[in-house]
Amino acid sequence: MMEQKGFTLWFTGLPCSGKSTVADIIAERLKTKGLKIERLDGDVVRQMLTRDLGFSKEDRDKNIERVTFVAKLLSRNGVGVLASFVSPYRETRDMIRNETTNFVEVYVNCPVEECAKRDVKGMYAKAYAGEIKDFTGVDDPYEPPESAEIIINTLEESKEESAEKVIGKLQGMGLISA
Amino acid sequence: MMEQKGFTLWFTGLPCSGKSTVADIIAERLKTKGLKIERLDGDVVRQMLTRDLGFSKEDRDKNIERVTFVAKLLSRNGVGVLASFVSPYRETRDMIRNETTNFVEVYVNCPVEECAKRDVKGMYAKAYAGEIKDFTGVDDPYEPPESAEIIINTLEESKEESAEKVIGKLQGMGLISA
Repeated sequence: MMEQKGFTLWFTGLPCSGKSTVADIIAERLKTKGLKIERLDGDVVRQMLTRDLGFSKEDRDKNIERVTFVAKLLSRNGVGVLASFVSPYRETRDMIRNETTNFVEVYVNCPVEECAKRDVKGMYAKAYAGEIKDFTGVDDPYEPPESAEIIINTLEESKEESAEKVIGKLQGMGLISA
Repeated sequence: MMEQKGFTLWFTGLPCSGKSTVADIIAERLKTKGLKIERLDGDVVRQMLTRDLGFSKEDRDKNIERVTFVAKLLSRNGVGVLASFVSPYRETRDMIRNETTNFVEVYVNCPVEECAKRDVKGMYAKAYAGEIKDFTGVDDPYEPPESAEIIINTLEESKEESAEKVIGKLQGMGLISA
């Protein structure tokens, strides 16, 4: 059995950059090792926590605020939280860093053209056509992290390679045992 | 050091019946023993989780729904959650029982006249005067639990006696070590 500390592994990046895909792979591997892991992403929390919220700036802030509260309580009690949210603003991510235990920022780096290509729901197309407003990467800014603990490049790396990189870093930081 | 399982200790009862007072005492004692304990009550969650909500039936349901989500994640990861909410409806409490791990219902029993007497914020007076609508115990029903695991009577018992009773019961149920 592996051992662990509580931590908050925070995946930030453009829509469709691969945040949830990589986080899911890591969560599965760590759970198999017997670690206490919770995944928080839009689909998970929208069901119970943020069903009332839309995609306005204000609503996205509230969404992150509630997720931060949950991540705070879990991570300070020894649970490893894997949260994947666009979370485009540095100031917001710094707030999360201050609130949670062992915050590890994972910048999921991928060119916007590639993200748009992967977008099965056609959100980018709608944003480019002006049908959706304030879409991150199109008409709303994404502020890349300046000192993320981990950077993964989902254009060059396979999702398994990215997952391995993150797990190795968690071990290197002493948050999970080797 | 004591040992513990994850559990959800749910205090239900009329406003001002003593739910938070007793839950706070228990939380302090268990934390001192090194247990992983989180308190969830209106004041705690309103700050980060439910600031947008008022006191309508719909908003109170949403409030409980979000708290339930947090209690679910914590209790299934080995944390002891002490939640204190009026939660007047049996159906709602049964939903929480189904969602969370090791749910223990604590009925905080106290006559409504005594609750009104203790009410330093004057909410009961406003409800009796018709200035507040849908106030539990005045013009909105409270459905007492039919098979609560624990009943405390905060009129007859001191708050320390009530706290001891609950802790003893948790030990008897094997949720914390004796």
